[in-house]
Amino acid sequence: ADARAGRQKVVVCQACHGLDGLSKNPEAPNLAGQVEAYLVKALRDYKAGERKHETMNIVARDLADEDIADVAAYYASIQVDVLPP
Amino acid sequence: ADARAGRQKVVVCQACHGLDGLSKNPEAPNLAGQVEAYLVKALRDYKAGERKHETMNIVARDLADEDIADVAAYYASIQVDVLPP
Repeated sequence: ADARAGRQKVVVCQACHGLDGLSKNPEAPNLAGQVEAYLVKALRDYKAGERKHETMNIVARDLADEDIADVAAYYASIQVDVLPP
Repeated sequence: ADARAGRQKVVVCQACHGLDGLSKNPEAPNLAGQVEAYLVKALRDYKAGERKHETMNIVARDLADEDIADVAAYYASIQVDVLPP
């Protein structure tokens, strides 16, 4: 998976998820620093229709496995510091 | 929703998601600072079986709406700083 290549491919994603991975839309989750395997699974499930969401099923439909891997790597690579609760 | 009450209720959640909201299990996503409405929707979908995941469908089955709101508020309340990519 190539996070740098992923950065080019998030053009579609950033409208709702941001280039920085912070949600730009009240329904969309933050993706910054998310667990990479979880992002890959989510995209695969949206692509296969296993997981239902109007927009995401459309967005994921045309993603090749390599695109899924790169986009997931990109968002997972964003560094996030969590302040202890 | 009461994030402080949520903190007591995350006893079940923290095994995989951590008290700090950072994933403790390669399949589980980070929840720290996640969008609250997104967390509520995810829990509701797991509870209703709209969204399928073996563990989460069991965990969510017995959550009352108030528990869902409080747990979501708790994780959403964890402060997260994203370092620009």
